[in-house]
Amino acid sequence: MIELDVPSGLPAGIATPAPGDPRLARLSLNQRTTQRWSVGEAVDGCLAAGVPSIGLWREQIAEFGLDRACRAVERAGLRVSSVCRGGFLTGLADDYARAMSDNRQAIDESAALGAACLVMVVGGLPEGSRDLPGARQRVEDRIAELAVYAGQNGVQLAIEPMHPLFCADRGVISTLRQALELAERFPAEQVGVVIDTFHVWWDPHISELVARAADRIASYQVCDWITPFPADALLSRGMMGDGHIDFRSLTSLVQQTGYRGDIEVEIFNAEIWAADPHATVATLMRRYVEHVLPS
Amino acid sequence: MIELDVPSGLPAGIATPAPGDPRLARLSLNQRTTQRWSVGEAVDGCLAAGVPSIGLWREQIAEFGLDRACRAVERAGLRVSSVCRGGFLTGLADDYARAMSDNRQAIDESAALGAACLVMVVGGLPEGSRDLPGARQRVEDRIAELAVYAGQNGVQLAIEPMHPLFCADRGVISTLRQALELAERFPAEQVGVVIDTFHVWWDPHISELVARAADRIASYQVCDWITPFPADALLSRGMMGDGHIDFRSLTSLVQQTGYRGDIEVEIFNAEIWAADPHATVATLMRRYVEHVLPS
Repeated sequence: MIELDVPSGLPAGIATPAPGDPRLARLSLNQRTTQRWSVGEAVDGCLAAGVPSIGLWREQIAEFGLDRACRAVERAGLRVSSVCRGGFLTGLADDYARAMSDNRQAIDESAALGAACLVMVVGGLPEGSRDLPGARQRVEDRIAELAVYAGQNGVQLAIEPMHPLFCADRGVISTLRQALELAERFPAEQVGVVIDTFHVWWDPHISELVARAADRIASYQVCDWITPFPADALLSRGMMGDGHIDFRSLTSLVQQTGYRGDIEVEIFNAEIWAADPHATVATLMRRYVEHVLPS
Repeated sequence: MIELDVPSGLPAGIATPAPGDPRLARLSLNQRTTQRWSVGEAVDGCLAAGVPSIGLWREQIAEFGLDRACRAVERAGLRVSSVCRGGFLTGLADDYARAMSDNRQAIDESAALGAACLVMVVGGLPEGSRDLPGARQRVEDRIAELAVYAGQNGVQLAIEPMHPLFCADRGVISTLRQALELAERFPAEQVGVVIDTFHVWWDPHISELVARAADRIASYQVCDWITPFPADALLSRGMMGDGHIDFRSLTSLVQQTGYRGDIEVEIFNAEIWAADPHATVATLMRRYVEHVLPS
């Protein structure tokens, strides 16, 4: 019986790699891709499928319990490729204490989990504000404070440039260039960057910027850009191969920097969330081999 | 009676400027903002309201008749701030002849109308293609051919960097930097750039890029970025003041380059299109004065 890909319903292009297949050695499942799984279920799902690494979300960690999550990933022998997410640093002065406290807690959780990095989604414009330079300045100032604390705890902050689509409401760091200009003020072990194909694939200067990122690459995340654009912009991410992104070229650029860390599949998509998570994992394993891994 | 703004329904912030008000001297109505008006109706609408300039669309010009459109704007004494649009140059070899012929015709029409420029929306990826560098290369090659023809006909091609949101399906020129790198290979009278607030407001390097654009600024277009993002991404533009863009800062940057051309209001928005076009024009005149004009 030929398996069907999720969510396209197309026949699988290759056989699903079996656990232990060396092509899976760097694959990580970001748990948001299998949204309905708890941390425990996602860990079990990775173990059963042979995915050696996982990206965890703080809301799900909190639901499951941090200690329990630490034990689950340790017992399963999984790497934690990232914790998602810190950030939301753009609030005005009355939000400063909350933001810093929350981010220190996120750093503590990442340290406890032995995560490779804490992904930072820096936040959009405060309600009613049009002061974009001001919001960006607050991000810089607050990252500077958090970088020290992160370094003390052995956690790398991973600044995620967000697609300019999200500048107003999610992340005022809009390009890899801008993320690097910020990260480069700090030691690389304190502050790196996320390269997420969805956010950066359009950038006309991507080659030079990935090369410049080099040892700052804290996380490499993949998902596709699909059209027509879905009604909910937040859920506009597609399974690799269903959209317009040339993953192999991007992976090659990342590879050329010497990056050998995990490659994390992170997809927000209502149709994928409605599917059986096991089918989603099987599809992403196949598509990862077909589209993402350098040939 | 206090007038209400379109489409917010909020009370007008200022009285609508009367025809002849010097604050309107550089205002242009892009006719897509009043979508249901023909060229003739839009010309009449500008004349009645005291808007001295108009941006015309080729589909509407074709419907109305080119000669008739030329006579209408001449009789009304309006400037034609732009013709929208040429471009769609990313097709593969089998689309080359069509694309070049269509663009030469667009240049001819722009020349006949005495338009300040022909706006170039360069096109997205061809169906099924993931070769973004290839698409961008074809744009460069074809602009190089068209630039000569445009120059011979006294028309400036205005490369419009499109928001990265549209990279896959509308325009592979995604930043002002990229548009300038292309335009700067040609004499400024042949190839300039469009600065459209919607497309570039998020750019972290906008100040230096607008300064660099200087005498390449062929058109300055304004509309707002609104959230939550509407279901149809193409119609996600808002009336100035209804969204997140700090227009006055951007206008100041443009002003500092010495640009003294028209400022064109171009809004694609289903709610605005459903409103009475006269109310739309009155609103945009007020909002232009309140939000866009440098103080």
